[in-house]
Amino acid sequence: MTMQYGTFDDKNKEYVITSPDTPRPWSNYLGSTEYGAIITNNAGGYSFYKSGGMGRFVRFRFNSVPLDQPGRYVYFHDHGTRDFWSASWQPVGKPLRRYKSICRHGTAYTTIESEYDGILSEVTYFVPLGKSFEIWKVRVTNKSKKVRNLSAFTYLEYAANWNALDDLLNIQYVQYITQMNVVDGIIDHGTNVSIPEMPENFKEKDQGRHTFQALAGGRVVGYDTDRETFLGPYRSYANPVAVEQGKCSNSIAYGDNPCGSLQSKFTLKPGQTKEFLVIAGIGKAEKEGKNALKEFSDISKADVELEKLKSFWHKRLEGFSVKTPDTELNATVNTWGIYNCLMTYAWSRAASLIYSGIDRDGLGYRDTVQDFLGVMHSIPDEVRKRLELMITGQASTGGALPVIMPISHAPGKEPLPKEEDYRSDDALWLFNAIPAYVNETGDISFYTKVLPYADKGEDTVFGHMKRAIEFSFKRSGAHGLPCGLHADWNDTLRFGPRGESVLLRCSFDMHSKHMST
Amino acid sequence: MTMQYGTFDDKNKEYVITSPDTPRPWSNYLGSTEYGAIITNNAGGYSFYKSGGMGRFVRFRFNSVPLDQPGRYVYFHDHGTRDFWSASWQPVGKPLRRYKSICRHGTAYTTIESEYDGILSEVTYFVPLGKSFEIWKVRVTNKSKKVRNLSAFTYLEYAANWNALDDLLNIQYVQYITQMNVVDGIIDHGTNVSIPEMPENFKEKDQGRHTFQALAGGRVVGYDTDRETFLGPYRSYANPVAVEQGKCSNSIAYGDNPCGSLQSKFTLKPGQTKEFLVIAGIGKAEKEGKNALKEFSDISKADVELEKLKSFWHKRLEGFSVKTPDTELNATVNTWGIYNCLMTYAWSRAASLIYSGIDRDGLGYRDTVQDFLGVMHSIPDEVRKRLELMITGQASTGGALPVIMPISHAPGKEPLPKEEDYRSDDALWLFNAIPAYVNETGDISFYTKVLPYADKGEDTVFGHMKRAIEFSFKRSGAHGLPCGLHADWNDTLRFGPRGESVLLRCSFDMHSKHMST
Repeated sequence: MTMQYGTFDDKNKEYVITSPDTPRPWSNYLGSTEYGAIITNNAGGYSFYKSGGMGRFVRFRFNSVPLDQPGRYVYFHDHGTRDFWSASWQPVGKPLRRYKSICRHGTAYTTIESEYDGILSEVTYFVPLGKSFEIWKVRVTNKSKKVRNLSAFTYLEYAANWNALDDLLNIQYVQYITQMNVVDGIIDHGTNVSIPEMPENFKEKDQGRHTFQALAGGRVVGYDTDRETFLGPYRSYANPVAVEQGKCSNSIAYGDNPCGSLQSKFTLKPGQTKEFLVIAGIGKAEKEGKNALKEFSDISKADVELEKLKSFWHKRLEGFSVKTPDTELNATVNTWGIYNCLMTYAWSRAASLIYSGIDRDGLGYRDTVQDFLGVMHSIPDEVRKRLELMITGQASTGGALPVIMPISHAPGKEPLPKEEDYRSDDALWLFNAIPAYVNETGDISFYTKVLPYADKGEDTVFGHMKRAIEFSFKRSGAHGLPCGLHADWNDTLRFGPRGESVLLRCSFDMHSKHMST
Repeated sequence: MTMQYGTFDDKNKEYVITSPDTPRPWSNYLGSTEYGAIITNNAGGYSFYKSGGMGRFVRFRFNSVPLDQPGRYVYFHDHGTRDFWSASWQPVGKPLRRYKSICRHGTAYTTIESEYDGILSEVTYFVPLGKSFEIWKVRVTNKSKKVRNLSAFTYLEYAANWNALDDLLNIQYVQYITQMNVVDGIIDHGTNVSIPEMPENFKEKDQGRHTFQALAGGRVVGYDTDRETFLGPYRSYANPVAVEQGKCSNSIAYGDNPCGSLQSKFTLKPGQTKEFLVIAGIGKAEKEGKNALKEFSDISKADVELEKLKSFWHKRLEGFSVKTPDTELNATVNTWGIYNCLMTYAWSRAASLIYSGIDRDGLGYRDTVQDFLGVMHSIPDEVRKRLELMITGQASTGGALPVIMPISHAPGKEPLPKEEDYRSDDALWLFNAIPAYVNETGDISFYTKVLPYADKGEDTVFGHMKRAIEFSFKRSGAHGLPCGLHADWNDTLRFGPRGESVLLRCSFDMHSKHMST
């Protein structure tokens, strides 16, 4: 086992993973808060619309073996040798002495380049700016000296219900609501198709939902939409029967477990290259699918969109940069530190291989307000909006709601938290975030902006801060220290009804000084 | 693919699955409501203490690929050939032309007999009566003409938290609470070991819990308790690195994903047989583990216990039997119909490969009261107890709580259901169950027994029935038919606030007649 798995590519702002057998999967994020996706260095992961927990249309089982399966796979079958492999090392997992693979995690895109048996493949995964679909840009080159007859098979395992909890655990229900379809070669992944659609209502899990998967620049010669048919009984992602046999069965899942695989065939002369795009996203095959396919009928448009995406991200990252003798420090400060802060800001622990998005759907108060600090200099306008949202998540008592649901938050109308549910530190983090915003922007008038409390009433931003201090004063213990309540910053301490927090007192003193200056 | 996978063995009351590649996994139940377990014909499944959702200490990911993994595996490694396989066809899945396997699903036990490369193995899984541990009785015979040096490896994938929802989805928490240990060759699977234990409190998921795994009749030469160490990166249950290499690493999981594998070594001359027991169950290695090991130090005791279990079950099934010219009808009526009714009665859709036990933990009112009818003649005394429980789940309004939690149900103190949550048919099923009980036992005095309502007050059993009718009368619609409320028997119809149910009216008429006679 090597201990060196990759290096920073500072110029391209990429991390290059040179050996695919990393001890743990290495994730990147694609897309935006509108359409988000996780992808690992072996193409594992899932996609979701707005919410990792309630809009997850690609299935993912946490803690699987291997840890990052399933994912977004492209399989190849060689009709001459009858051998098969995947464009990422996993899930087929050919011996690494014969299979070479490099993964480039870039800024909201990931490229996996592999070579096996004289066939070079390069798949770049990204979400074009402003779109609610993802693109897998596939490039296959014959580096051997023989003509090669190949099939490519895409694979996505779909959720039977976009609500991840139901999809993973309420099997007696969700195995009856899938209705797959194929319209002019475009897969339509439908769930509960006969009941009304309420696209923006994530609280109603039982509603019609559709996603599509299309192929641009390739000829679809077959498909499968039933997982068990594509994989075959007692097989796994390592050896789907359709891929092994080089032929899909044109299965249509109606109930059971859905998947989406499009098979395309092509012949490559020595040195020849074939390119095609997989486009998968929100909406019906008939409408959004066809529109996306039309938009990318000239597949070189994907290159243009990828460049736009890179420029957008590089610009975001370049607001603050350092040049030191330590190149790794430079890479961390100039690219990866801020990149990761921006992703944390976007998803706030709601979607990863660890966070399922289910019990953390929404913005945890203290986490979110802390997250502002890392991205203030990069996206102050976006932070301002969310900071105002969080301030309206403070109750008129001065304490804060533990979690703000951005989609449904109703300032002035939220129920007050129960006294025993307050965390002692939540609203106090405003003392870090608000001054940081003012320092960054110079907009001192922010202190006088009037914003509502979560439950009732309103106040200036400064008034909100004052109320946070008063909240702590009123909840002090026998030694005059503020009580820890449900938790202080340390979630694992149990303070009891009157237990005091020294940690809180320290920050509290600091904040009181700030208020008096 | 064959279409014939097995046959009934009427004499032994077993279903014999003669080909292991069944289209879907075929499950059996082991144990009791105290210690329950699911096992498939390829040894997939999980175990739980009292509750499939809140007491599940063996991990299971629903809808996996294959559908029934992980499970209770015994692997073999041949130190001569360096080949390896499993005592059930899956998870290693050797080619079926070389691997023969028969599964016998019996009455609360399952035997898997396999032969590969001259080695015959037979594993019988069962829970001894009255015990809170399971036994895997393993018998290995050398049918070849050579001396064979073998290792056997057990495998159980443990839950990091007994609460299945947390274990599957709250990864950021549960990957920090495991503490495995090995005490005198007995695995101790500990979770949250530093916080207090509350064995009977299933509402508190954050508490210390222990299970053990021991080997009787074999010499433990190594172990693994860390899943990633045993399996190896980017491998699966089909090819654990420890099994492939023939050597465990003595890993101790502290956090991360726990598992339990005990390696034992033995040499078999031609014709020689080796027997050992795997004992896995509730409690600490130091105490309950050592006690169980002591109890079964003479491993032939397992045969005695297995016979006791068979007698117990066969006696339960033999209360009613038929002899017709159709042997399959006989098998269904005399064994499998009543056996499945008893299992449904026991678990009420709370634990299977489909029911995760999470949203169905507890007794659904109408399901449970219907389930009585299938087992009344077999276990009338047990039914009486649960029937009384269900009657105390009827509210003083006459309607019923949708779900009764047997562990925590508090008659007279339960909150009233919201009006919109009543199902119209729940309490009406008492009209099938109560007379059936009286008919079976002749105990007409049951009608005059006084039992509390769920929320307040009490009444005779007959009075409870009357209240159920009144509930329906009070909730009639424009045509004088009873309203469907949240649902009638058909859960998928939406009646709206005043919609009426013809289905309900029919049963209602029948019940009214019953009351007046």
